[in-house]
This record gives sequence, structure tokens and C-alpha cells, in this order.
Amino acid sequence: MLRVAVVGGSGYIGGELVRLLLDHPRVRVVAATSTRRSGRRLDGAHPNLRGRTDLRFTEVDRLSDVDVLFVAARHGTLMERMAGWGQLAKQVIDLSADFRLRDPQQWHDHYGTEHTAPWMLPEFVYGLPELHREELRDADRVAVPGCTATAAILALHPVRHLVAGPVTIDARTGSSGSGASAGPENLHAERSRAMRVFAPVRHRHQAEVLQETGIPARMTVTGVEAVRGVQVVCRVPVRHTGDVPLERTIRDAFTTAYRDEPFVRVVAMSRGTYRLPEPKILLGSNYCDVGFAAGTDPATGAPEVVCVAALDNLVKGGAGNAVQGMNLRHGWPERTGLEFPGLHPV
Amino acid sequence: MLRVAVVGGSGYIGGELVRLLLDHPRVRVVAATSTRRSGRRLDGAHPNLRGRTDLRFTEVDRLSDVDVLFVAARHGTLMERMAGWGQLAKQVIDLSADFRLRDPQQWHDHYGTEHTAPWMLPEFVYGLPELHREELRDADRVAVPGCTATAAILALHPVRHLVAGPVTIDARTGSSGSGASAGPENLHAERSRAMRVFAPVRHRHQAEVLQETGIPARMTVTGVEAVRGVQVVCRVPVRHTGDVPLERTIRDAFTTAYRDEPFVRVVAMSRGTYRLPEPKILLGSNYCDVGFAAGTDPATGAPEVVCVAALDNLVKGGAGNAVQGMNLRHGWPERTGLEFPGLHPV
Amino acid sequence: MLRVAVVGGSGYIGGELVRLLLDHPRVRVVAATSTRRSGRRLDGAHPNLRGRTDLRFTEVDRLSDVDVLFVAARHGTLMERMAGWGQLAKQVIDLSADFRLRDPQQWHDHYGTEHTAPWMLPEFVYGLPELHREELRDADRVAVPGCTATAAILALHPVRHLVAGPVTIDARTGSSGSGASAGPENLHAERSRAMRVFAPVRHRHQAEVLQETGIPARMTVTGVEAVRGVQVVCRVPVRHTGDVPLERTIRDAFTTAYRDEPFVRVVAMSRGTYRLPEPKILLGSNYCDVGFAAGTDPATGAPEVVCVAALDNLVKGGAGNAVQGMNLRHGWPERTGLEFPGLHPV
Amino acid sequence: MLRVAVVGGSGYIGGELVRLLLDHPRVRVVAATSTRRSGRRLDGAHPNLRGRTDLRFTEVDRLSDVDVLFVAARHGTLMERMAGWGQLAKQVIDLSADFRLRDPQQWHDHYGTEHTAPWMLPEFVYGLPELHREELRDADRVAVPGCTATAAILALHPVRHLVAGPVTIDARTGSSGSGASAGPENLHAERSRAMRVFAPVRHRHQAEVLQETGIPARMTVTGVEAVRGVQVVCRVPVRHTGDVPLERTIRDAFTTAYRDEPFVRVVAMSRGTYRLPEPKILLGSNYCDVGFAAGTDPATGAPEVVCVAALDNLVKGGAGNAVQGMNLRHGWPERTGLEFPGLHPV
Repeated sequence: MLRVAVVGGSGYIGGELVRLLLDHPRVRVVAATSTRRSGRRLDGAHPNLRGRTDLRFTEVDRLSDVDVLFVAARHGTLMERMAGWGQLAKQVIDLSADFRLRDPQQWHDHYGTEHTAPWMLPEFVYGLPELHREELRDADRVAVPGCTATAAILALHPVRHLVAGPVTIDARTGSSGSGASAGPENLHAERSRAMRVFAPVRHRHQAEVLQETGIPARMTVTGVEAVRGVQVVCRVPVRHTGDVPLERTIRDAFTTAYRDEPFVRVVAMSRGTYRLPEPKILLGSNYCDVGFAAGTDPATGAPEVVCVAALDNLVKGGAGNAVQGMNLRHGWPERTGLEFPGLHPV
Repeated sequence: MLRVAVVGGSGYIGGELVRLLLDHPRVRVVAATSTRRSGRRLDGAHPNLRGRTDLRFTEVDRLSDVDVLFVAARHGTLMERMAGWGQLAKQVIDLSADFRLRDPQQWHDHYGTEHTAPWMLPEFVYGLPELHREELRDADRVAVPGCTATAAILALHPVRHLVAGPVTIDARTGSSGSGASAGPENLHAERSRAMRVFAPVRHRHQAEVLQETGIPARMTVTGVEAVRGVQVVCRVPVRHTGDVPLERTIRDAFTTAYRDEPFVRVVAMSRGTYRLPEPKILLGSNYCDVGFAAGTDPATGAPEVVCVAALDNLVKGGAGNAVQGMNLRHGWPERTGLEFPGLHPV
Repeated sequence: MLRVAVVGGSGYIGGELVRLLLDHPRVRVVAATSTRRSGRRLDGAHPNLRGRTDLRFTEVDRLSDVDVLFVAARHGTLMERMAGWGQLAKQVIDLSADFRLRDPQQWHDHYGTEHTAPWMLPEFVYGLPELHREELRDADRVAVPGCTATAAILALHPVRHLVAGPVTIDARTGSSGSGASAGPENLHAERSRAMRVFAPVRHRHQAEVLQETGIPARMTVTGVEAVRGVQVVCRVPVRHTGDVPLERTIRDAFTTAYRDEPFVRVVAMSRGTYRLPEPKILLGSNYCDVGFAAGTDPATGAPEVVCVAALDNLVKGGAGNAVQGMNLRHGWPERTGLEFPGLHPV
Repeated sequence: MLRVAVVGGSGYIGGELVRLLLDHPRVRVVAATSTRRSGRRLDGAHPNLRGRTDLRFTEVDRLSDVDVLFVAARHGTLMERMAGWGQLAKQVIDLSADFRLRDPQQWHDHYGTEHTAPWMLPEFVYGLPELHREELRDADRVAVPGCTATAAILALHPVRHLVAGPVTIDARTGSSGSGASAGPENLHAERSRAMRVFAPVRHRHQAEVLQETGIPARMTVTGVEAVRGVQVVCRVPVRHTGDVPLERTIRDAFTTAYRDEPFVRVVAMSRGTYRLPEPKILLGSNYCDVGFAAGTDPATGAPEVVCVAALDNLVKGGAGNAVQGMNLRHGWPERTGLEFPGLHPV
């Protein structure tokens, strides 16, 4: 059993990390930290874990060595603390944005500050197994992608070589993405049933999309009702010639891209309530469902594909993806500890 | 007091018509029809109207003459029955799609059948007061716009002369749009918290957008949690030259377009939870809130505006808009019977 | 036009007061106070009021004389400030709990502090028109009832003379009752779809029920999903003898009690989705729907009635009830400014 | 690997059975039946199972022998078909109400028809492991309890010997309890945010409570927002004498009753958002959380306990409980296949 610890264990992502790791057959959770809740029980912050653990939160400065350190801290924290925390564990898996963007200028442009540890950026592997599986098998430093970025990248990856023009991404997200310390604008009375356009013109996560797919996209993010769940709808103008119908070409591209992926399902049916990816059936699961509809751009008559993806922002969009990366590094079956399929109805 | 009747009074739009008309100081509701509920009380279908009316539904064939006939029937019904129903009232206000599209070919392309009364199309005025106010003052035949179309047209109208390329419209809608006779895919257990991409590539309402604004747009429609409410987010590449900042140009365009409109509010603030149009605060109201964010297309570097609009699909997107049209025709103050501002929080 | 002001205008009850008063044909809102938002626009706190008012919040110490002063401050505030604020207006209508309980000992028992102005208690009339209409016609000091208390009192009032044993009240409430300054336990992610038993054994509002109906009841309060809305379900063992069926006796009691009430509807049908009072169709309305089911206590075989009531906690359970009290005092039709019937569906 | 089949596999309970059984390490799902969907894929009805199974629904008459047959059919079906279906499997686990009540007169009183196979009633064991564990180890015929009954029985069981008077049970339930074939009153637009009092005076499940605890209770059932989840709040007048504080006595009773139970957690804390049982954190889990608050009946001054329980109606209130019964019969660890702890937030 490897020893693992979670920094930032009282947040929503941190709680999901602990849930997954407690049930993981190859690891033992030896510590979870929280500044605010130090000394108090984990199941006080995460009541679903009652009966599963008697652990109490510790302070980060009292962490001892572990095999894997998961860091679910605020953006900007790890780049300051990596020198110290990096000594604690052979593998460090970061769930913040600090080491996702390889180019420190991109960090500056999207997060508004100077990156304070740019020399460490090359050490980190972008933790998306579907694109970086082989690198992750050896990665001691992993930067887990953003939730919206994960959905968008997996939606666009199969068609990246067909893109014929600017891509528009409409992303919708549940309220847990704002975190356990969210402000009054996230009170139930304000947030319930909202359709809140957070980022109308552009969003930080599009930098990850550009880096990983080469596609410059414009991304709008809207908060909708749901606690968990991210969905992206991407309008993609495509090149299409020859005799094969566009629909067939795209279906082949998706099928081929994800044939052997344990956590990506292609959902693109002609009928049915769930004919395209729907986040609500993915709560708690590590799936990212991807799908598409091929057609003709009504505005231009040109061939167009609408790519859709859905995931649970706290699992495949965070904690689950992180565990998948750990599994890869240690040569365990990739699905280990990530078997829960999601619920219907819910 | 004018005498008015509602065909299709047991549906959701029909119920809102009755609610608004019962409180309207210039009219008296003399009949509401329902095939399924004929002979039963209106407040059985619309429990909010208890204590407000003792009316019972009648069959449509027993309607007598009225001054204004509102028709909230299924698409394709009125075009068959107009010859008869048209005799019943000087003013007929239709809430279906039958007479919205002036070109019968457009009907065919978007609704899949031949239009059976194309010669009547020229009689109808498109019932959007913000664009057709003067015509509506004389209109005896009104085709009330679709809910999503209303939002999209009002979002795009101020910038229509600046459009420099294909427009992408992302529309989100609540569950009442599926009607009171919706099927099992609209059961609460299935629809609750869904993000259901109904129409990924194109949607019928974009035909109305094209007709009214001249803008060929691609529209995606997604069902989200909410019972009432439509929101559109429109990505608009724009021409922009000269010294005036784009944001200023666009704000002027919006302000000018809607300066004297009683039911359009420009909502485009730099901060705050409700800085862009949000449908949840519009429940029951006849407002369409419109707003924008001006920026640079992250994909191309070209100037771009994201236009947003929100409304209650059953009011400004249906019954309220119809009443506004009636008010115009009879020279009453346009706000008559439509004063309710909406609720916060809700 | 009378001049009115609202103390505590940035809260949820305060916002509803402003909404109702702005549309009230007999009054003019001259001021609304907020400590936190002083100097800022009202429609910043209450975005539904955009286009309806250009008022800005003032500080309470800058209030000048008005005809009616509504006070929507925290519990315990007005009893300290009444000496001063009482000079500002002939009529003071308080929406806090400070002057609801005539016996200062009851205040102490339920709110945990000494009442600091017990000599003023006799000046206040309990602002429930259905029980105190005649007193309210002359009342210069009104204590508006608690939302749950209003529902419970109106549910029990018709059967109070038949009660044969302890009454159990199960109250369910939406999230707006926790106010615009609620804490992290009211974040959407925590509160959404919750069934949170706030008060399992007893609740403050039962003191009002005892005072107004003479019925000692045990009240449980649970927070459920909904932003607005309170429902109470009251199990009432009743005396029943003679030939008249219990159901008839109770129906007569309800019908008689509320025959002439403008805002109480008796809803007790044998079938239908809305056969008993349901808060969701009352959003924004001043109705309190009351109903009942008569039967036999399954546990004892004795006659029993289950009384149900529903209302919007911010309207009939707060702001609307306050306006109704103002209308009574000034001899205006009781429905003035309170006509909105609620929405269906919603 | 034992071979198992599910009759009624396209419903909500049936879907959860399939989900749990597919991941159960000791069994293989060989068939699931559906009249309506015969020949179609299981994952068409249960989209969360995509990638987990390629099974198609069969007709019930084509079932061959299995080791365990789960029956999730409508009430009244199995009592007619037991003669035949009983031959198919050594163990039959029924999730309908048909064989829950040992006294056929109780069936008649609560379900309104004659029981057509009363001679079979003694063969069935009431499938609540917490009360009938030893019998279940040998049970070839199991009647899985009703969801509300399970919650109420587990809430009341620890205090059953202390009950001093009539018990009042307030039960709240999510929309999935109405099933996948629910009618128009369960449309999202009608059911969303409802507080719908289904059964104001009494409910069928109280017959199970009486049978299993000996406590005659009066039960109200209300449908609230949530897809999954049942909560009961039980007011229990209790006998209490001697020096030990009531709170201590009750806590000891709960702790003792459930000390060794794998799926019952005692949740009764003095503070915290989740201090009493809350269904929302139990989605997908087999836990029944139980708790209490001890106090004095405000109406009578007598000692009183409010017992609360929460569960997922489709898991511990149905499919999960059934699997737990199967585990017991075959001597497998009781938690097998039922480890999922639930999510937070959700």
C-alpha cells in the first residue's frame, strides 16, 4: 500500500480525492490538510465519509513523507511552495492551474500575475491520460487539467486535424466549481436555476485547449443549475471533401480516437433523451462522454460539426483524473478505484 | 371592455394568456377552449387562478364572436382553421408558428410540411413591437414570435448593421417550453438538472432571426433546469474602425435602439451577480433584458461582441408579447396589464 | 400619495417591500436604508427593479419624516431604536419578531435575551388581518407575523375550537428565509435539494401560534428545495360527535372562517395535482392557501384532521402582509397593490 | 459466479438492480426483462450503464433458470405469477409490496384488493437485514420493504420499547418514487420545487411500520424536490424516568441498536449543516442514516424524541437492500457490491 496525502482536503475537489483514495485498493490516505479545519474530523467537512475514516485534518507544515502528494490548493499556492512540498513525495499531482500552461507568458495573460517558478514548468506533465498516457507512466510531476478544458479538449481532439476555421465553445457548469468557500453570489437563493454568464467572451481554460489541441477557440462559460457537471458544446467548421458522408467521417474519427479509452464513451445517437452527452448521469463517475452532430453551417452552407462533451467537474474534471494519473504512474490498472458508473435517474 | 377569447386555453401559454387577460383593465375574457378539458373549470388546469375566475373551458366549435381571438394551438392547426376562426374576431393573434415566416418555403424547410394557407401569410404582421410597432397599430392578424427567436432578435437587432461574419447563437430554455402535454423525457426525474442539447446544429427559430434581422445564424438549443426562462448568447464578429472604443459603440447602439422601449432593458455592467441578462429574475414579467460584452475574438483577434438576452418564454416569449400587440392595436398604453416586474430572489 | 420608507431595504423582505410599494397606487417610496449598501442603487441589490426606480440606499440616521415606516431589520434592533424611529412616522410596521409576542417572558424563552422595551409591547397590534382586522384599522404600530406562524395560524384557526389534543406541525421552508446574508451552509452546493431539519423539536414561531390560536403545538421546521415558499402540515386530533360527517364539519369551518377573506383560499379537493395547498404556485402572491383532509387517526382510531397551509414567505409571510396592514389603516381597498396571483407552471 | 436475472429491468428500481449487480463480484446478470422494451439494449433505458453491458431486454416468458431472481414488477403482479416464476430460481427477491404484509387483511386494507396468494405469505421473509438478519441467511423468498417503511422502521426501532403514545411520521420523498412511467403530474414543470402532500392522513407503508415495530403510527407523505431520497421525521412521545438524561438514554439506544450494522450510521450532532440525517449525501449509497433529537413536547411538557432517518429510495429503499439480502443468503460479506458511500456536494 502506498502512502498518499491530500493538501487542501477540506475543499470540494479535496473531498472527492479523499473519497476516491479511501476506497482505492492500492493506497492508504495518511493525511489531509486544511488550514481552516486543522484538528477537526474529515467527515465534518465531507459528511458522506462518515463511517469511512476517522482521520482529522492536519496543518500542511506537519506533513511527513508520502509516496504521492495530491495538491488541491488555490491557484498560485503551489508555485510558491513547490520547493518545500516537492521534497515530501516522489510523485506530486497538482490540481490547481499553476503548472498546466507550459508557456509562462500564457499564465500571465490568463491569470494576471507573473509565474514565480517558470523553471519548474518543464517538469510537469499535463495530466490528461487520453493525450499523454505514455508520459504519465513516468511522470513524477503532474498538472491535472481544468474541468472545462478537459471536456473541451476531449470533445475537439478527434476532429483537430479537420478544423477549418474559428471554433466556438459554449461551456456550462454547476455550482460546485465555485468551491466550498464561494461568496454570497453563490447563495442558493441567488444561484438556484440561474443561467449566469460568467465569462462571455473568453475564459482561462481556452489556453489549455489551445496548448493541447492547437485550436484557437473562443469560450463562453455559463453557470447553470446543477451542483456537479460540466458540458461543452463546440461549433467546429470542418474541411470535408470526397465521397464519404461527413457524419461517417466524424464518427470514425471519434471511434478511432477513443476505442481503447477506459473513461471516454462516444455518445452520438439519432434519437433518445440521452442521445448526446449529458452530465447529470455522470455524477461521481470518471467518464467523459463525448459526442457530435454533423451538419451544414446554417449561416454559410459549409460543413460543420458540433462536438459535445460532458463530465463531472469534481471527478474526471479533477479528482478522478488525478487518480487515473496516479494509477498510470504505478502501473496499476487504469480503472482502479474509479469504477463507479454514475446514476440514473438522479 | 372588449371581449376576448383564448383557443387552447389549457396549455401553458394559454394559461398565461388567461392570467394576463383576467387582470387586464380593458378586456373581459368570455371564453377559453380546450378539447381535453371541455366543461371543466379553468382553475383546474391553472391553479394559480383560483378565486380569479369561475370560467369553464368550452369546445372551440362553440365559440361566439369576440373582439380579439388569441390562438394558442399546435403548430399547423390555425392554417387549417383560419377560414372559420378568422370570422370570429376582428383581431386574431396567433401564438403558433403558422404565420411567422413570410416565405412558405421557409415553413417547409423548417417544419417539414407544405404550408396550406400561403395566401394568408401577407395578412399577418410579425408581432414583435420593438421592430413592427407601427404596423401593429393597425394589425388585425398578428403572428407572435417564437420565444427563442424573440430573445435572439432583440439581442442582435442593435448590432445588425455591424455584423462581419457568421453569428453563433447558443440558446438555453426551461422545461415549460415543452408544454403541458410533454412526454416521458420531461418527467422530473429525467429533466431535473439536465443539460440536454435538443438541437445541436440548427433550430427552427433561426429562420425568424434571419427574416427579422437579415442575419444568417447557427443556433444551438439546450434544455436546462428552470421551468420558465430563455437565454441566448450570441457571438457576433463585428466591423469596427475608427477611434471610438468598440465597447462605447456597442453600448450606444443598444441604448439608442431601446431607449423608448417599455419592455427592453439594457443590462451590461462591469460587475455584479446580475451584470448580464438572467432569466430567473424575469419570471412572470414581460421584460426582455438585453446586454453585451465587447472584446476581441480570442481565436482570430478580430473585434467581436457577445450579445445576451433573457426573457420568460411564456410571457415576453409568448402571452405577454401577444397582449402587448393587442394593446398597440387598440391604442391603449403599451404597458397595460403587463406591469409585473418579476421577483428577486426566486 | 403617502410617503413611505423602508429600513433594511437591501434584504430579501426589504426588497419585496420596495417592489410592492413602488407599484402601489397610493404611496411613494421616498427612502430605503441599508448600512452595507448606503449610497448605492436599489436595483443593484434587487435587479428585478431595474427601470422601476432610480433610488439609492441611504443610512438610517438620515431618514426624514414619512407617513409609514416599514422596518425590516434584524431581530432585536427595533426594540432598541423604537424611541427614535418611532418619531419618524405615524405608522410603524415592523417585520422583525420584536413586538410579536405580547408576553416579554415568551420573548425571553424563545429568543434567549431580555426584551428591552416591554412597555411598548401593548402598543403593537399583531398584524394578521384575518384575526385582527378591526384593530389594524386603527393601528399605528404593527408587528407583522413570522412566515411559518402565519401559515400555521391560518391553517389552525378554523378548527381551534375542535382541538382535542396536542397538535403536531410540520413546516417546510425555502432558502430565502435564511436571508441575503446567510452563511456557507446556504451555498447552492450545500442547500440544493436538501431536506434539512433545522428545528426538530420546537421552533420560535410556535409561540405565535399559541398566542393567536390558544393551541400549544410542537413544530418541526425543515429546509427544502425552493427559494420561496412555506408549507405547514398540521395533525390535529379533533372532537367530533353527532351525525354530520367530520369532513363536512371541517369544510364548513374553513369556508365560514375565510368566506370574505381576500387572500385566503380554501383548497381541499378530492383529486388533482394541486388538491391541497402548494407554495410553488404562490410565488409573488399574497395568498395563503389553506386546506385539510379529515380522517381517522391511524394510530388511535380517533377523529383527526390534517390542516395544510401554503404561502410565499416573503409576501403573505412578510412584505405583502405588511402592505395589507397599511391598506387597512388607511382605509384603502385591502387588495390594493397586492393583486398578482402567482404563476403556473413555475 | 451465480446467475441472476431481473424482472422489470427497465424501471428505476430495476435499473439500480442492474447497476449494482453488474459490479457485484459474485454474480453475473444473465437477463433483464421488459415488456415495453423487449429486444432493446439495457443502456437505452439506463444510459449510465453504457460501456458496462451489451445486454438487451428479454420478455419475461423467455427467462430460463437462474440462481437468484429479482422481481421489480408492479404491485399485484408477482402474487399472480409466483407459481411460475418461483420455479425459475432457488431464491426470489421481490421488490413490490405483494409479500411484505404477513396478514392478508392488511393487504386488503391498504391496497384495496384481495390478496390472491395468501398461502404463500409465510414463505417470505421481510427483507430488512437490521431486523431479520438470521432469517435472511436462509431465506429463499424475500419481500424487500418499502422505501418509506425502511426509513421509518430504522428510525423507530431503537426506541420502540420506550414509546408512550401515538407516533407521527412525516415522510418526504423525491420524484423517482413515482417511477419511470409516471403521469403528467410528474412533468418537470409541475413537480419541480413542489411540496406536494400526496397522503395527508395515512399511507400504506405505515402497515409495515406497525408489523415490524409494533408501533401504530400516522404517516404523512409529501413529495419534495429531489429525484432520489426519502426522509422521515418521527415525533415519538416516550417514557422517561430516573436519573439518566433522556438524550443519553436515546443515544445509547441508537448506538446499541446499530453498533454492528454495516449500513446504518447514527447521525445526531449538536451542530453542523449535516447534524441530522440528510438524503442528499446518500445518493447511490446503501446507507440509512438515523438520528434523533431529545426534548420536551412543547405542547404537553412530556418527554419526547424526534427520530429522523434518510436513505436513497432506490438503493437502501429498494435495490441495494435487495442485494444486501442476497449477500446474506449466500454467506458473502454483507457489504459486497454496496461500497459506494455517496457524494458531497451533490
